[in-house]
Amino acid sequence: MQLKYKILKQCEDAKLASAKLAGVETNAKNKALIGIANAVKKNKNKILAANKKDLRNAKKNNLSDVLLKRLKLDNIKINEIIAGVKSVAKLEDPAGKTLAVTELDKGLNLHKVSTPIGVIGVIFESRPDALVQISALCLKSGNAVILKGGSEAENTNSTLFEAIRNVSEKYLPKGWIQLIGTREEVKEVLKMDEFIDLLIPRGSNKFVKYIQENTKIPVLGHSEGICHVYVDKDADLKMAVDICFDAKCQYPAVCNAMETLLVHKAIAKKFLPLMEKKFKEADVELRGCAETKKILKNIKKATEEDWKTEYNDLILSIKMVDSVDEAIGHINKYGSGHTDAIITNNKKTSDRFMDLVDSGSVMVNCSTRFADGFRYGLGAEVGISTNKVHARGPVGLEGLVIYKYKSFGKGHKVADYSGKKAREFTHKRIK
Amino acid sequence: MQLKYKILKQCEDAKLASAKLAGVETNAKNKALIGIANAVKKNKNKILAANKKDLRNAKKNNLSDVLLKRLKLDNIKINEIIAGVKSVAKLEDPAGKTLAVTELDKGLNLHKVSTPIGVIGVIFESRPDALVQISALCLKSGNAVILKGGSEAENTNSTLFEAIRNVSEKYLPKGWIQLIGTREEVKEVLKMDEFIDLLIPRGSNKFVKYIQENTKIPVLGHSEGICHVYVDKDADLKMAVDICFDAKCQYPAVCNAMETLLVHKAIAKKFLPLMEKKFKEADVELRGCAETKKILKNIKKATEEDWKTEYNDLILSIKMVDSVDEAIGHINKYGSGHTDAIITNNKKTSDRFMDLVDSGSVMVNCSTRFADGFRYGLGAEVGISTNKVHARGPVGLEGLVIYKYKSFGKGHKVADYSGKKAREFTHKRIK
Repeated sequence: MQLKYKILKQCEDAKLASAKLAGVETNAKNKALIGIANAVKKNKNKILAANKKDLRNAKKNNLSDVLLKRLKLDNIKINEIIAGVKSVAKLEDPAGKTLAVTELDKGLNLHKVSTPIGVIGVIFESRPDALVQISALCLKSGNAVILKGGSEAENTNSTLFEAIRNVSEKYLPKGWIQLIGTREEVKEVLKMDEFIDLLIPRGSNKFVKYIQENTKIPVLGHSEGICHVYVDKDADLKMAVDICFDAKCQYPAVCNAMETLLVHKAIAKKFLPLMEKKFKEADVELRGCAETKKILKNIKKATEEDWKTEYNDLILSIKMVDSVDEAIGHINKYGSGHTDAIITNNKKTSDRFMDLVDSGSVMVNCSTRFADGFRYGLGAEVGISTNKVHARGPVGLEGLVIYKYKSFGKGHKVADYSGKKAREFTHKRIK
Repeated sequence: MQLKYKILKQCEDAKLASAKLAGVETNAKNKALIGIANAVKKNKNKILAANKKDLRNAKKNNLSDVLLKRLKLDNIKINEIIAGVKSVAKLEDPAGKTLAVTELDKGLNLHKVSTPIGVIGVIFESRPDALVQISALCLKSGNAVILKGGSEAENTNSTLFEAIRNVSEKYLPKGWIQLIGTREEVKEVLKMDEFIDLLIPRGSNKFVKYIQENTKIPVLGHSEGICHVYVDKDADLKMAVDICFDAKCQYPAVCNAMETLLVHKAIAKKFLPLMEKKFKEADVELRGCAETKKILKNIKKATEEDWKTEYNDLILSIKMVDSVDEAIGHINKYGSGHTDAIITNNKKTSDRFMDLVDSGSVMVNCSTRFADGFRYGLGAEVGISTNKVHARGPVGLEGLVIYKYKSFGKGHKVADYSGKKAREFTHKRIK
């Protein structure tokens, strides 16, 4: 009860601050960001010391090597954090933009203006750099932020949080940033739909899935990245081999790496052995459908489960298909709506693929690995979304704003626009 | 179990159809819409006969007069339905628009393209005209639609549905429109988050609230419309009286009518008696705070409950405030984020109000009753949203689309953009 009350109070404070934050000028937000970058620099030793303490505890608690790697901060990471915050200061302010203007009638104008969303909840595991990055993005877009970190990063997070809060509250409404302690349950945060307008979870697929399934608050992000490359009968096979290798091997542990290769039967005999040879360089384990195994005789058989699996590893499932439509059907059935590519020189085929594959990112003749906020030129990435409302695919600052309508009248009443002598609206689009 | 299986099958069919619908040309969609308008005309007598049957049953079941009025179709309503469908055919197709183009590097272009959302679930009470209107909007935006009507309109809905399906499936993928019978529980539909991408509930506040609180599917709409007008110390009092009268009395039963009047103390003594006199014309019941009652001695006392109430009736609560900031605070605390207006000739004050009031529509010197898709010139209205993600305020066809990213490469691999000899992205904005 005590804890619940404490979290409630923090959420209320953030909500109140967010209402004021919507009126803060871009200039003040940028000053706060530069202040944060400097504060992280100034407090570097303190932050690294806190992180060492967390690492010691984590080792005692037998945390996995992957998690330890995510948890660890060093000079290089601190410098990346500082550079990241500074780069957010340089991005255009996504809030306060006039998106459209319509004259409804003489003297009555309607403006559609971008605004902050309100209060963003960020729930993250291990990586303390996520705390700074997301706080900077929320700040720039004018949103209050409630941070809930994992217990393994308790000391690092609270040191980073103190540094950010102390300097930023010189420029911004008090309470705009809140850290929810590690003993408090994630469950409590997930119930705060009255105060939190959007949740951004950062962590493992399992973690994100848990968040998505246990809250009424809209969640921005993705749990799975089951990405496909379809090599069409009209593909340049040399290009196809290179792109497939890049999509699988350039960094296999990430969400935009290829997990399933679909191959048109007309080129399978020629293409699959070339592909197998290339994949041997990187020791990729191949698992094929029955038709694929007729060509690549020594590989494992792929099961139904394989089509649904994000390996995040040097494993690839391969399926032979009769047509682009069969490829599209397979992707829409087993994919996760993240990123899918076609290799073909037939424009009609690639147009069909790109129109009908229902994913945030679709590609022709390039690697699925390009699906990323930095590579897409978004400036900064909040995450990659497989949602079909609000924001989809790699999401930059724009995903942290919504809009409101502002009407500017001179005494206009609706009664004048109804009845027998009704005035007519002009509905003239000005912008 | 039988019913559950049937609904599942309908949802699966809609999902499959939606994947094909994304590739249907605007022209075919418009032909289907004109076909629907003609089919409603041709089947008019059949529709009216079915409606009479529903009305007879409804009377037997002692349905309220309000619900009977919503349920009833006549020649005029049928003509309005036909005109509505035809007007949707004339609207611009919101899907397939290229929203932005960025050159990532030479030969590698990224297009941001608007796309249908997928499958829209529409749950509605009583009004059978909502079935046709929303189906037309879903069709135009390229979305499959699953309709769940109320049992009181069973015969009307199924007759309308048959007419729409029969003609539209000549142009569109079979299964794009589904009617879920009346015996099936709304509860089953709310569980279909695997298939339905967005829910649009149409009905009473209580009904919409129930939907919002009992599904994991994103919901577009609003339950309450607690709208405010704040009369500032720098208001033109004659204008303020006229606008307040319009906002309360022009149509008190709707969501964008004023429910609470906030008055600056500096003009209260002059303004409130003028307002009271005008409101007497329309027999409006006034309820005031303690300060208000010092001026308007004979009115009822407003309680805490009044500030939270959407009367939808000729009742108005009145509160005196010390400043625009107190007005903003009251609105953000008790309002529903729907529509709020300020009456003032002080630009600094109105700017502050419009920036800091956290509602979908904010207004200066005009009536809250303007917050409406038709009046805003959106062409057609899906509903009014108090959401803070995806779509907000009056929502037109644009609220029924999302976007995807399409990358067009010539064999581009991410490996070339990493390591020591990394290529640099150009990130040149083309559109």
